[in-house]
Amino acid sequence: MPMRSVAIFGTGLIGASIGLALRASGFTGEIIGWDKDRAQSLTAFERGAVSVIADEPLVAAVAADVIVLAGPVFSILEWMERLAPMLQPHQLLTDVGSVKYAMVERARDGYNGSSHAAFLPGHPMAGKEVFGAEHADGELFRNAVWLFTPEFPLEHPSALEWRMWVERFGSRTLDLEARRHDELCAWVSHLPQYLATALSALYEETFGDADDMRAIGGRALREMTRLGASPFSMWRDIAHMNAEPIAAAISALEQRLSHLRENLKSPELRDEFLLANAFRARYPR
Amino acid sequence: MPMRSVAIFGTGLIGASIGLALRASGFTGEIIGWDKDRAQSLTAFERGAVSVIADEPLVAAVAADVIVLAGPVFSILEWMERLAPMLQPHQLLTDVGSVKYAMVERARDGYNGSSHAAFLPGHPMAGKEVFGAEHADGELFRNAVWLFTPEFPLEHPSALEWRMWVERFGSRTLDLEARRHDELCAWVSHLPQYLATALSALYEETFGDADDMRAIGGRALREMTRLGASPFSMWRDIAHMNAEPIAAAISALEQRLSHLRENLKSPELRDEFLLANAFRARYPR
Repeated sequence: MPMRSVAIFGTGLIGASIGLALRASGFTGEIIGWDKDRAQSLTAFERGAVSVIADEPLVAAVAADVIVLAGPVFSILEWMERLAPMLQPHQLLTDVGSVKYAMVERARDGYNGSSHAAFLPGHPMAGKEVFGAEHADGELFRNAVWLFTPEFPLEHPSALEWRMWVERFGSRTLDLEARRHDELCAWVSHLPQYLATALSALYEETFGDADDMRAIGGRALREMTRLGASPFSMWRDIAHMNAEPIAAAISALEQRLSHLRENLKSPELRDEFLLANAFRARYPR
Repeated sequence: MPMRSVAIFGTGLIGASIGLALRASGFTGEIIGWDKDRAQSLTAFERGAVSVIADEPLVAAVAADVIVLAGPVFSILEWMERLAPMLQPHQLLTDVGSVKYAMVERARDGYNGSSHAAFLPGHPMAGKEVFGAEHADGELFRNAVWLFTPEFPLEHPSALEWRMWVERFGSRTLDLEARRHDELCAWVSHLPQYLATALSALYEETFGDADDMRAIGGRALREMTRLGASPFSMWRDIAHMNAEPIAAAISALEQRLSHLRENLKSPELRDEFLLANAFRARYPR
C-alpha cells in the first residue's frame, strides 16, 4: 500500500472524523492535521484524529502521500491553487466539498497531468448540524454515500487506495458527473438546509420569546428546524458556488407551497398527500 | 376515584396508546374500545390497549364514566353531536383532536350545563407519521405536552381525574384559550406537516424513479420528509377546520423562502442564519 501518511487540512467535524475513521479502519501511518483555527487541530490531536499537528501546512502537504482538503468550499479552492505547483505526481489531493463542478474546473490546470499530482474530487454525504472536532465521530461515514466526480477515470494508485479506505469507513462510493452532482445536491442536501434556515428564522421572528409556542413544539418542529443550527460560514460558500440550482429548487418549493395553500379545502389536497406518501414509501427509515 | 370505566372511540395510534398508557399507569378498570374499522379494535384488544370491544358504541358510551374521542376531527364533532342527548351529568367526554375551537363551539349546546355531561377539550402534542393500533405505544405521551382548552374552569370530578391520569402518562398539561391553541398549532404542528407533504410531493414529481437521487439522500432529506408519510384522512379534516391560520403560516414561509432565494449571494443570508441559529439555541435536543 503506497499510502503511509495523510495530511488533513481542516480538522473540524468532517476532517477529524476522517482521521478517526482512518484509525478505526486500521490505518497505522502518520495523520498530519492543520486547521487555521489552532484550537480545532488541538482538539483533533487530543481525540486521536491526527497524530501530528502541522506548524507549516505547505511543508506538511509536500511530505504527505495523500492530502485531504476538508475545510469550507472557498478554502478548498484556495488550497488547490496554492498546492498545485508544489505537489509531485506520486501524490494525491482529494477533498470533501459540498459542491464539485468548481473543483473539477479548477483542477484542469495544475492537476492530473504527467508532471502533476492527481486530484480526486469527493463528497461524503454525511454531516451533523453541529461543527468542530469535538463532535467528530469515526462512525460518521458508516452507511453513507461517498460521491466522487472525476472528469475521467483516475488510475492513480493513491486514488484507488483512497477509494478503498473510504469503503473501509463503511461508506458506499458512487461516481457522478460533477454538474449532475451539484444539481442533485441542490435538491437533496442544499434545499433541506436553506429551508430549515428559512423556517427557523421565521419562527424566531414570529414568536421570539413566546413561552406557549416553545412549550408545545414537538418532534415535528424539532426535526424540521434541526438544520437551523448549521453555521453560516459553511453554507455561504455553498450558496455562492451553487446559487442557480439552489434558487431553482427553492423556487419550485415556493410554487408547491402556494399550490397546497390554495387547495387546503379542495380535493386536490389528496393528490399532494398521495404523491408525498409515494415518495416516502421508498424511504423506509 | 370515580373513574371505573373508560370508553375509547377510535382505537388507532392515539386511542390505543391512551389505553396502553392507562394500563401502564395503573388503571385497573374496564377500557371499552370501538373503532369504525373493526380490525383496529381487534389489534387494540390483542395488544391489551382495550379490555372489551364494543359492539354498540352508543351503549358503551352510556355505560362509561369517561369517553375519549380519538378519531379524526370530523368524527369527533359528529360523536359530540350524537352523544350530547344521551350522556349524564356524572360523565365526562374528552377528545384528542388537533384543532380545538370547533369543539369548544360545538360544546356550547349540550355539554357542561347542569343536566349535561362535562366536556373537556384536549390535545396531546404527540404522534407518529405512521398510524393504526399496531404502532400504539404506552410511552407515546411521556415528556409530551397535553393541551386543554376549556372555555371556563371545569371542576367536574372526572375532568380533574382525567388530568391526573394524563400526568401519570408522563405528559405535562397546559391550558390555552382555544383560538390561541389553533393559531399556535397552525405554526408548530400543521405548518411542518403541510410543508413536509409539499416537499415530498415535489421530490416525487421531480425525480420519480431517479436512482442517483435516491442513493444520495441522507439524514437531512429523511427528516425533512418524514411527515410526508402522514395520512390524508387525518390532515384533510385539520386543513378544513383550521384553514385560515394554516394558510397564513404557509404564506409567511413562502415569502421567507423567496427572500432567502433572492439573497443567496448577498450579506443578508448571514442574518437568516443568525436568526435560525438563535431559534435553535432554545431547542437543545
